[in-house]
Amino acid sequence: MGDTTVLNMAVAAGPGGILALIRSGEAVTRARIMQVTGLSRSTVAQRLDALMACGYIAPAAAETSTGGRPPGAFQINRDAGVMLLAAVGAGAMQVAVCDMARTILARQSHKVAVADGPAAVLGKVAAHFDELLAQTGRARAQVRGIGIGLPGPVEFAAGKVVRPPIMTGWDGYRVPDFFAADHTCPVVVDKDVNLMALGEHRGAWAGVTHLLFIKISTGIGAGLIMDSALQRGAQGAAGDIGHLFVGNIEPEHTEICRCGNTGCLEAYASGWAICRDLTAKGHHAENVRDVADLAQHGVRDAVELLQTSGRLIGESVAGAVSLLNPSLVVLGGELALCQSYVLAAVRETVYRRSLPLATRNLQIVTSKLGHDAGLMGAAQLVSDAIYAPAVVDAVLEQSR
Amino acid sequence: MGDTTVLNMAVAAGPGGILALIRSGEAVTRARIMQVTGLSRSTVAQRLDALMACGYIAPAAAETSTGGRPPGAFQINRDAGVMLLAAVGAGAMQVAVCDMARTILARQSHKVAVADGPAAVLGKVAAHFDELLAQTGRARAQVRGIGIGLPGPVEFAAGKVVRPPIMTGWDGYRVPDFFAADHTCPVVVDKDVNLMALGEHRGAWAGVTHLLFIKISTGIGAGLIMDSALQRGAQGAAGDIGHLFVGNIEPEHTEICRCGNTGCLEAYASGWAICRDLTAKGHHAENVRDVADLAQHGVRDAVELLQTSGRLIGESVAGAVSLLNPSLVVLGGELALCQSYVLAAVRETVYRRSLPLATRNLQIVTSKLGHDAGLMGAAQLVSDAIYAPAVVDAVLEQSR
Repeated sequence: MGDTTVLNMAVAAGPGGILALIRSGEAVTRARIMQVTGLSRSTVAQRLDALMACGYIAPAAAETSTGGRPPGAFQINRDAGVMLLAAVGAGAMQVAVCDMARTILARQSHKVAVADGPAAVLGKVAAHFDELLAQTGRARAQVRGIGIGLPGPVEFAAGKVVRPPIMTGWDGYRVPDFFAADHTCPVVVDKDVNLMALGEHRGAWAGVTHLLFIKISTGIGAGLIMDSALQRGAQGAAGDIGHLFVGNIEPEHTEICRCGNTGCLEAYASGWAICRDLTAKGHHAENVRDVADLAQHGVRDAVELLQTSGRLIGESVAGAVSLLNPSLVVLGGELALCQSYVLAAVRETVYRRSLPLATRNLQIVTSKLGHDAGLMGAAQLVSDAIYAPAVVDAVLEQSR
Repeated sequence: MGDTTVLNMAVAAGPGGILALIRSGEAVTRARIMQVTGLSRSTVAQRLDALMACGYIAPAAAETSTGGRPPGAFQINRDAGVMLLAAVGAGAMQVAVCDMARTILARQSHKVAVADGPAAVLGKVAAHFDELLAQTGRARAQVRGIGIGLPGPVEFAAGKVVRPPIMTGWDGYRVPDFFAADHTCPVVVDKDVNLMALGEHRGAWAGVTHLLFIKISTGIGAGLIMDSALQRGAQGAAGDIGHLFVGNIEPEHTEICRCGNTGCLEAYASGWAICRDLTAKGHHAENVRDVADLAQHGVRDAVELLQTSGRLIGESVAGAVSLLNPSLVVLGGELALCQSYVLAAVRETVYRRSLPLATRNLQIVTSKLGHDAGLMGAAQLVSDAIYAPAVVDAVLEQSR
């Protein structure tokens, strides 16, 4: 509590609070805003004028895509600037530029080696950002926020990478500092699977309060939505399902994980482990895309390894379901998206292993946002930073 | 969002909001309340008068135990009534009556068989409540709230027991209905380990945002505090660590759990499993109290079983730590409180199994509140219900 409550009470009925009502759709007309806030007509009018003058909102009537909004409604001004987004994985990255309503205007996919370190990787990200701006005819000055997803734990408030198992050279690196020279806007950084969970939740399952997102790709990770909020844990390391101990499930061989431990789920069931096993069997499998291709062509070794992977992941997901009691488990990442084998194996194992109460209303599905989940989650987080009521109030105060 | 935000904005600066500031200690004087709420001196005075007239608050000066409160401070009026509390376990229960500041005025401990069903068990609880009222010279009309902890999943909003593994006859039972004939006050019901987690968090570790409470008693369960809030999951079943799969950790024998599954943690490491194993070895061990007594007398079988239990619990706690990234794990319940064996074994296993990031700032301790954690958590939850700002506003509105 403490300062937060105090701040909330002061800010709730300010211009930033009104913007939050418009953004969430709770109150988008003058009449409804007056009703909700208890403010007078003139105060509401004054604050709406200030929000428009600063470019935060626009009359909804001016847009053709407003759907069912009532006459006289306001909405976020989508043309007030752009956001730059990057979803960096272990071996590939997506970059995009979107408008303030989170519609993607241009995008690119690239290979990347995250272990090349922050200067090399973020240098590429920055170069691609400039290409995207040029492609859409925007200037750096129009960038209102930057969102970056990384395949490792991030201390969210500082945007600092903390002891990432696979990101050589990144430990302790503060990502926002890299962009500070070229951009003055907020830079928001989070673990990739957190962004995917957030993107999937807000974009496809906003009514679900408890969602567990499982990324099955080169690595395996989880994103936790509880009571509709992303839970990052005390040091940003929550969701580390890839290093749960499953060693005795496959007692005939002990695999060493890339974290250094033995018996981790990842060492048996992740994309990198499947590549290792397929290579040992004489197949060409350098990355998860190769694994997916082999399985799609019906190569038996690939199909069997994916099914075994699904069962092992299912054992760990069953444990997470018992512990967290979500109503929805979403499987995402390259291997979950390409393969019905994985979904079926995870489902079968979770329903067999979990208590009836935990699975009674439990759905297990693959990601609806697919490859866009991470980018969309980044856009959500950046929007949250830009439109935070206290930030909006401060901007308006300064512009007087 | 939706209705909640609307409600929060309307209520924040009302009398209930002011009471919340006093209760939390954020603002306890007229001057500070004016500063925080932005309300005028006369409005604040009027609302404080109304709160006093309804008995919610009292001048702090009238108390001798106010410590460092400034002159002119207000506080919760501890004499405005009493709360009745019951912490019902599988084989024993504690009942208590406390004042509105959560100081226990009288208490009792009794044996109980929770599988006798709700009518029998709650009938005993109600009878003990009447005894406690008589003992402290209070009438039923002075009871402002009732809090009940039960050893099974509870749909919190309705106070309804849902598919409890060990509570025969309770499935679907709405506990508040039982008390409706004799009491008109709110009746709050939750799973026992949730109350213990809440009691421990607010009572001993309020500054810790991520706390995992593990109850090691007849059964094994977990209570999850994340971002300083209790997380119950979608159906109130979160924290079900006792039924995580550990079967292959002890591959030489497969034990059937009381939930019907095989290989659950509880089937090897819980109080009932240890009683089973001690009995098989010829010892007299009917309940966790007997187990604790044997271990305290240095009986080798009991000590060894507790150590093995601690290691198995540690494996599951390590998984929970990877998934939730708490900064504090608290071990409570009969077996955790009596035995240094258990704490040492859990610690050793968690630090060995978990990733460095998750354990870098992790503390593992035994409960500070000990046997009182459940009762104190119940008192916290009942207070939250009684002093909810919207409820206070409604009461004041009606009393005009």
